[in-house]
Amino acid sequence: MLQLYFSPMACSLASRIALMEAGLDARYHLVQLRTKQVVGDDSDFRGVSPKGAVPVLVLENGERLTESAAVLQYIADLKPDTGLAPRLGDPDRYRLQEWLSFIGAEIHKAFLFPTFWYSDEGSLAKPRARIPQTLSVPSAHLADHEFLVGNGFTVADAHLTWALLLLRPAGVDIAQWPSLSAYLERMQGRPTIKEAVTTEMALRKTLATGPA
Amino acid sequence: MLQLYFSPMACSLASRIALMEAGLDARYHLVQLRTKQVVGDDSDFRGVSPKGAVPVLVLENGERLTESAAVLQYIADLKPDTGLAPRLGDPDRYRLQEWLSFIGAEIHKAFLFPTFWYSDEGSLAKPRARIPQTLSVPSAHLADHEFLVGNGFTVADAHLTWALLLLRPAGVDIAQWPSLSAYLERMQGRPTIKEAVTTEMALRKTLATGPA
Ligand SMILES: N[C@@H](CCC(=O)N[C@@H](CS)C(=O)NCC(=O)O)C(=O)O
Ligand SMILES: N[C@@H](CCC(=O)N[C@@H](CS)C(=O)NCC(=O)O)C(=O)O
Repeated sequence: MLQLYFSPMACSLASRIALMEAGLDARYHLVQLRTKQVVGDDSDFRGVSPKGAVPVLVLENGERLTESAAVLQYIADLKPDTGLAPRLGDPDRYRLQEWLSFIGAEIHKAFLFPTFWYSDEGSLAKPRARIPQTLSVPSAHLADHEFLVGNGFTVADAHLTWALLLLRPAGVDIAQWPSLSAYLERMQGRPTIKEAVTTEMALRKTLATGPA
Repeated sequence: MLQLYFSPMACSLASRIALMEAGLDARYHLVQLRTKQVVGDDSDFRGVSPKGAVPVLVLENGERLTESAAVLQYIADLKPDTGLAPRLGDPDRYRLQEWLSFIGAEIHKAFLFPTFWYSDEGSLAKPRARIPQTLSVPSAHLADHEFLVGNGFTVADAHLTWALLLLRPAGVDIAQWPSLSAYLERMQGRPTIKEAVTTEMALRKTLATGPA
């Protein structure tokens, strides 16, 4: 069985949603990110991945795969019929990779990550200043598209949904981008996303510290 | 013919190297990033891509593809026999995606980008503190591997080579990681990389401002 190392409401949420959308069973291991402990056996998470970051997907052969963009494509390709990723060879596959990179680099690392890990104004001012320009990109696309890629839900939507969910705790009011808030509302109506968020919000209450 | 919008020694260098390794001709358009001008016709680069960032690859059908991870995979897949990316369906393809994500998010956005775009200490202290932990990841891998993925040069090596080349101007002495400096030396011995860097260093002198 696949195994996913995750932390509640961290970016690993996208991988959980992808697993659920693919109908794949998995064992979930909760990680306390600040202490780098695997909750339950209290082992050091850096023994699982020296990066010390979630998501980590343990494949059927025991290998460990990290980085949301890779993990999400791996999960999608296990169930190509779900359309969670355009098939290999479909030009839209590069659009999927383009969005995964943009969300992982420009949204997550450029400002969500600083917001949750750095607390002083000096560290936060510049990343915050990038938010409007960055969010104008998905906002423009979603003004006339229901999904990020093609005409159906893909793992890029799982990734962006997670990022948008974290904007509020990051102090950003998403109502400034009507197409983004309408999109988030649609996504939150999906049964898998509803269930994944409910599960992780409940688990989050059992932990002392923050998400991203 | 393919067209690449680039800025000298910016992350688009990796796409130039990939095009050269693939033996693909392309038209190269120089962008002045701070002013967002396309050098030559002085047009607004944001008309080419609202992201205002390089690389932008213009495909044969006129579509524009952004984000290094997507552009690099696209170029590699045009010439599958070069081995610039493991073939679609090869498990190593996910390892390529894992490295592209790590370089684009954890190395580029987490500290190279801040170093070149923010100049105050407040903005730089936290990103800088992440450098040793981040670079320990490729350093450990390259201690006993010649390349990032499999046994040959891939576009992930083009991407990492660019990032390592920028460490020195970012004020980081790469000699701290012997496996990284040995790798960079090997990569700088490749004819395509030598030529790409010579070309862009010469162009850079014609511009007033910095790289990343
Ligand atoms: N580039 C990675 C980012 C992973 C990441 O930053 N994960 C966060 C949670 S959202 C984490 O585990 N942070 C802990 C740390 O970096 O110490 C990806 O796309 O998966
Ligand atoms: N996530 C993008 C990053 C692109 C990027 O940051 N490009 C830089 C040059 S290395 C740039 O054009 N910066 C100008 C800007 O963001 O205003 C990728 O991987 O291609």
